[in-house]
Amino acid sequence: TLDVSERDAQTSHRTVTIPGLINISSYIPNISNAVKGPAEMKEVTRLLVESGFTYSQIMPKSTSGPVITDEQYLKVANSVVKDSAYTDFGFTVAATANNVDDVARCAKDANALFLPYRELSNKVSIVAEHLKNWPIEKQVIAEAKTSDLASVILLASLQNRAIHITGVSNKDDLALIMTVKEKQTKVTCDVNIHSLFVSQDDYPEALFLPTPEDQDFFWRNLDGIDAFSIGSLPTALANVTGNKVVTGLGIKEALPLLLSAVNSGKITIDDIVERLHDNPAKIFNIPEQNAVVEIDLDFTFRHKKRWTPYTKGGLTGGVERVLVNDETVVLSGDLVATEAKGQPVVNSAKIATPAPPAASELSHVT
Amino acid sequence: TLDVSERDAQTSHRTVTIPGLINISSYIPNISNAVKGPAEMKEVTRLLVESGFTYSQIMPKSTSGPVITDEQYLKVANSVVKDSAYTDFGFTVAATANNVDDVARCAKDANALFLPYRELSNKVSIVAEHLKNWPIEKQVIAEAKTSDLASVILLASLQNRAIHITGVSNKDDLALIMTVKEKQTKVTCDVNIHSLFVSQDDYPEALFLPTPEDQDFFWRNLDGIDAFSIGSLPTALANVTGNKVVTGLGIKEALPLLLSAVNSGKITIDDIVERLHDNPAKIFNIPEQNAVVEIDLDFTFRHKKRWTPYTKGGLTGGVERVLVNDETVVLSGDLVATEAKGQPVVNSAKIATPAPPAASELSHVT
Ligand SMILES: [Zn+2]
Ligand SMILES: [Zn+2]
Ligand SMILES: [Zn+2]
Ligand SMILES: [Zn+2]
Ligand SMILES: [Zn+2]
Ligand SMILES: [Zn+2]
Ligand SMILES: [Zn+2]
Ligand SMILES: [Zn+2]
Repeated sequence: TLDVSERDAQTSHRTVTIPGLINISSYIPNISNAVKGPAEMKEVTRLLVESGFTYSQIMPKSTSGPVITDEQYLKVANSVVKDSAYTDFGFTVAATANNVDDVARCAKDANALFLPYRELSNKVSIVAEHLKNWPIEKQVIAEAKTSDLASVILLASLQNRAIHITGVSNKDDLALIMTVKEKQTKVTCDVNIHSLFVSQDDYPEALFLPTPEDQDFFWRNLDGIDAFSIGSLPTALANVTGNKVVTGLGIKEALPLLLSAVNSGKITIDDIVERLHDNPAKIFNIPEQNAVVEIDLDFTFRHKKRWTPYTKGGLTGGVERVLVNDETVVLSGDLVATEAKGQPVVNSAKIATPAPPAASELSHVT
Repeated sequence: TLDVSERDAQTSHRTVTIPGLINISSYIPNISNAVKGPAEMKEVTRLLVESGFTYSQIMPKSTSGPVITDEQYLKVANSVVKDSAYTDFGFTVAATANNVDDVARCAKDANALFLPYRELSNKVSIVAEHLKNWPIEKQVIAEAKTSDLASVILLASLQNRAIHITGVSNKDDLALIMTVKEKQTKVTCDVNIHSLFVSQDDYPEALFLPTPEDQDFFWRNLDGIDAFSIGSLPTALANVTGNKVVTGLGIKEALPLLLSAVNSGKITIDDIVERLHDNPAKIFNIPEQNAVVEIDLDFTFRHKKRWTPYTKGGLTGGVERVLVNDETVVLSGDLVATEAKGQPVVNSAKIATPAPPAASELSHVT
């Protein structure tokens, strides 16, 4: 447990230092677009590091479908991230109905296989094929829900392999996962941070949000939730509500939402660190970074630039400083690093590269 | 394998002798109704034995819901069957959303726990509770399909317990079951005999029937189907089509449908015996009976008394003679036994009773 013990003398603000956070589902829809990708990667990782995240696990999809589905796309993505990452990062690759062999060939350069909901719903035999072909020691991330959830867990459990369910969105799904976890420790899950704070009551048109009843179940069963995520939900929500979609929606307010819950006594700092650092590192086999984040619990968070799902205001808590490899990269919540020094990390083997990044550094991953 | 070697000299009809068949889902909706039950039990078991079945595993439900859900109902059912069974028989008991403890107390006197579709759809945590409370050595029968199928198999597999899926009705479900069976031998399934011969093409209003595509998949994957059943499907079909519902719908033509498929070369006699005798006996731990059935493969089957799902006619094959304990109980397809001597069988321990049945014989099961 972390003690909130330090105090900022000048302002009497409480501060606490935590390890660099892990974003397990960084939404960078142009990741395999050589033209638009680099600026988007820079913007998203800037927002992430300013928000306390020092590692970005990149989602292989946009709102219109999977974007990293074979070696060719992964090669483009690798060129996109070069000198554009303010955090360390790792790739995940997307399964589709017809890329079983293609995607398996990406395994050595990716941290996980991502099973998108839309593409694989009701396709049990294809999912089974993907699980057979993906290396057993590598993680699988499933967006599965309701009718697809039990079948993907079943298929993974028949292979005695790990599976991570991302973006659990209703209480029946979490209840099933919790039942499975009693017997089968290789199943893990995350809940979207925003869906802990906004519900179908706030956005009746967004059926992918939990109902207030689901949300209540999440809060009463935080022990069953291994990780928190951000993902593409804020963007999807902006889409259905007709709000402006810009790069990096939902990132900046993610931690302030959780810190406000700490301030109101609903969770502890340790609950956050477990779900945004300890468990993500274990689940995805991400090596320890030399990265710390100084949190200010009494900072008044105001979010002005972008539309945000949570519009009720009153958020308190934010990032004061971020240090990576003993270097200050964020100060007073703003990026101060002059270079994008983020490095690719494939599972527990950090890719050895000279610092500063040289042109040849990423060549082995292509 | 059984050879079709005997010949009926007088008529040049081919005959074959097979073991007494097992009906794993005998539909007797008034089984727990002390007034209507006995006549219905007599009629259904008469039709069954005339059709080659010498063992009836009784379904615990009517079309309006479960009928054997606790010890009290099981006690009534036991009084109903007394001196009313022309076959040996066994009880199964129905799980509901709120009888976890009640139904578990019936375990010693029942062969299996039955999980009805309607009552338990989407109730994962209740199904989990039932599976926890039901003795691990006793079979569980699930009507689960589509979205509920994977979750019930998952829950059973987490407990490493057997589960039998009854009435598989579409190709996705059979494909999932076949995938699971590659790794997990404790999962078995049956397909309804009628749904191998009539489809949604014949009855568009009956969405519980397979489509022609599903049916085609069943025929191409008979190896994945452990057993054949009759169950309540013919009655449900009469209901939705506005045909007259009478006791014992679908029984008499079940074997002739399969024998006609033998005659047209689609299956073998052995395929039938495996799915209506060998596998049912193994799956439900039913002890070997001293019962043989003489089949006439060239008998022209005509079904006149009751409405039948299969209306295309042209069925060839039927029961000539049935012998139980070396006594002829059916001759030329008609019941000749004067007494209903069927005995309760609880799993592999046949209940020891004096013959003829005495008033005290069933008292231990109540
Ligand atoms: Zn702790
Ligand atoms: Zn401060
Ligand atoms: Zn750590
Ligand atoms: Zn902002
Ligand atoms: Zn054989
Ligand atoms: Zn004959
Ligand atoms: Zn036998
Ligand atoms: Zn008839």
